[in-house]
Amino acid sequence: MGSVGAERKTVGYAARDPSGHLTPYKYTLRETGPDDVFIKVNYCGICHSDLHQTKNDLGMSNYPMVPGHEVVGEVVEVGSAVTKFAVGDTVGVGCLVGCCNACKPCELEIEQYCNKRIWSYNDVYKDGKPTQGGFAQSMVVHQQFVVGIPEGLAPEQAAPLLCAGVTVYSPLKHFDLKKAGLKGGILGLGGVGHMGVKIAKAMGHHVTVISSSDKKREEAMAHLGADAYLVSSDAEKMQEAAESLDYIIDTVPVNHPLEPYISLLKLDGKIILLGVINTPMQFITPMLMLGRKMITGSFIGSIKETEEVLEFCKEKGLCSSIETVKLDYINAALERLEKNDVRYRFVVDVAGSKFEV
Amino acid sequence: MGSVGAERKTVGYAARDPSGHLTPYKYTLRETGPDDVFIKVNYCGICHSDLHQTKNDLGMSNYPMVPGHEVVGEVVEVGSAVTKFAVGDTVGVGCLVGCCNACKPCELEIEQYCNKRIWSYNDVYKDGKPTQGGFAQSMVVHQQFVVGIPEGLAPEQAAPLLCAGVTVYSPLKHFDLKKAGLKGGILGLGGVGHMGVKIAKAMGHHVTVISSSDKKREEAMAHLGADAYLVSSDAEKMQEAAESLDYIIDTVPVNHPLEPYISLLKLDGKIILLGVINTPMQFITPMLMLGRKMITGSFIGSIKETEEVLEFCKEKGLCSSIETVKLDYINAALERLEKNDVRYRFVVDVAGSKFEV
Repeated sequence: MGSVGAERKTVGYAARDPSGHLTPYKYTLRETGPDDVFIKVNYCGICHSDLHQTKNDLGMSNYPMVPGHEVVGEVVEVGSAVTKFAVGDTVGVGCLVGCCNACKPCELEIEQYCNKRIWSYNDVYKDGKPTQGGFAQSMVVHQQFVVGIPEGLAPEQAAPLLCAGVTVYSPLKHFDLKKAGLKGGILGLGGVGHMGVKIAKAMGHHVTVISSSDKKREEAMAHLGADAYLVSSDAEKMQEAAESLDYIIDTVPVNHPLEPYISLLKLDGKIILLGVINTPMQFITPMLMLGRKMITGSFIGSIKETEEVLEFCKEKGLCSSIETVKLDYINAALERLEKNDVRYRFVVDVAGSKFEV
Repeated sequence: MGSVGAERKTVGYAARDPSGHLTPYKYTLRETGPDDVFIKVNYCGICHSDLHQTKNDLGMSNYPMVPGHEVVGEVVEVGSAVTKFAVGDTVGVGCLVGCCNACKPCELEIEQYCNKRIWSYNDVYKDGKPTQGGFAQSMVVHQQFVVGIPEGLAPEQAAPLLCAGVTVYSPLKHFDLKKAGLKGGILGLGGVGHMGVKIAKAMGHHVTVISSSDKKREEAMAHLGADAYLVSSDAEKMQEAAESLDYIIDTVPVNHPLEPYISLLKLDGKIILLGVINTPMQFITPMLMLGRKMITGSFIGSIKETEEVLEFCKEKGLCSSIETVKLDYINAALERLEKNDVRYRFVVDVAGSKFEV
């Protein structure tokens, strides 16, 4: 129980400036406090937002920055008050490592909406030190933000569930869209989108993948099991599909017109935006009014929902589709991700990588 | 029971072209069918959309056009199958006079979302003839689209409830926003907005009127009973009010930025757009995502909700605030409405007007 005194020095791969190029970086972890879990990182997924952060696209980056927030590892040491985890457990860490535990969202256990949430990296922890993410040998994380990885889930495939998976699961649950028989659309077939297809299918939905081109049709239908594939530039097919969907999960991370997709929604249908886009999106009011349709957004998911999605995927025999790489490939992987050249998530085999400083 | 054979010729005030100028116009009403109610019009409210329609702002106007869809009158004759109404009853007619009775919205009794809905005017009825509205001596309307005006409601004050009133009531009900203790915002203080303040207050909400200037402060607070008044250009007060509202009813019928108002919403807060605006409205996705906020719209209300809002207003002792005019003033009234120069709704005393052809 926190007695062995795990090595406080660790090595991660850090961006040093907005070039976003990652190189090995040595830093010190905090002592394992009473509520902390010391984790040896085994796998860490690469999320599109890692690109934004390392390149300072949002203007809020601090360097050196070790990214990575889809972390799966093994518990090496636990603090004296840690009851949920024991040494040797396989656990996960997602986007957040702290919150205020006092506000309304915290009270509702949707701490992702706490205004004092602390990000897994590029943030400042309660001790005043920078937080650093999962492209590193080890992390120390408060037990509240650690989840158990259920037995039966491959750890490398579980990693993307901690961000991409729960990002899709959370709004489906919140907006009462878990029930079987619904008709859903998935817009964008990246890390989040591909989990969207799998999770929605496992919920018993009829799933249409909507894309700007025909390129991913076979992939979507044969590999991911989508029921239909719609090319947004095909006016005839789009017209045929008008008012047919209960929801659309929109994962596209760049600006795009919304109107063609709003047209696909039924009465009371929802388009749920998951991509951070800082240029104005547009719509006209009659398109919403005349079907009481809804434009909304959702932001990752709570710890509770993360536990739920892991359990859900285990039960349904779901997993993410990944390409595993080593840390020495991470810069190439980030470049490929920027071009959407991955099926569908890179996961870094951190434990199997060499760390040289 | 439809035996007396009411006079089939009637006179209304019709627009003849996109100037929107109304002049007396004589036309023939259909025979009172088994399900029809022949109504002598007593009062008819002037809605902002009457302006759009008479001036062909939406490019879909047919002339001659007798506008008016906030109609209160007296039953003169009923068809053989009419059971809900008897000669002498005070009744109302709103925006719609027909629907398909077969689609999903019709099945759900929200026929305002039926794609085959028939408008009270500027539409074609099932007999192939144009529909004509309430600025006329009489109307013949299917009983399904006629509502009883409860005793105790002044008929001229009930008229605006048939469109403006139910337009506000419907989304508050649908989005589970009827419960006491909520904090709501009303944007725009015209015919719909002023009913918004009154209805939300009667539901037990804390109501903030949000306006672009300070001009209507006293009016909103003293006359309409709002709890707070917020000038959208006052950055400090807007900041103080950030994340404080459960909903905003946005009645503004012209393009305006949404972001200042989305900022005022709490987690899961909703901005409900009621104004038809055909130029693109804008927002950025993080503003929705980081609070799971929602942009939605709503469109008038159902017959059932119209009956509810009439009952609600009667119970709560509510009424609309109106300026009563005669038909010979209607063109001046339309001009003043265009400049928002009315507190808050013009209602035409149709029965007390002279009709000269």
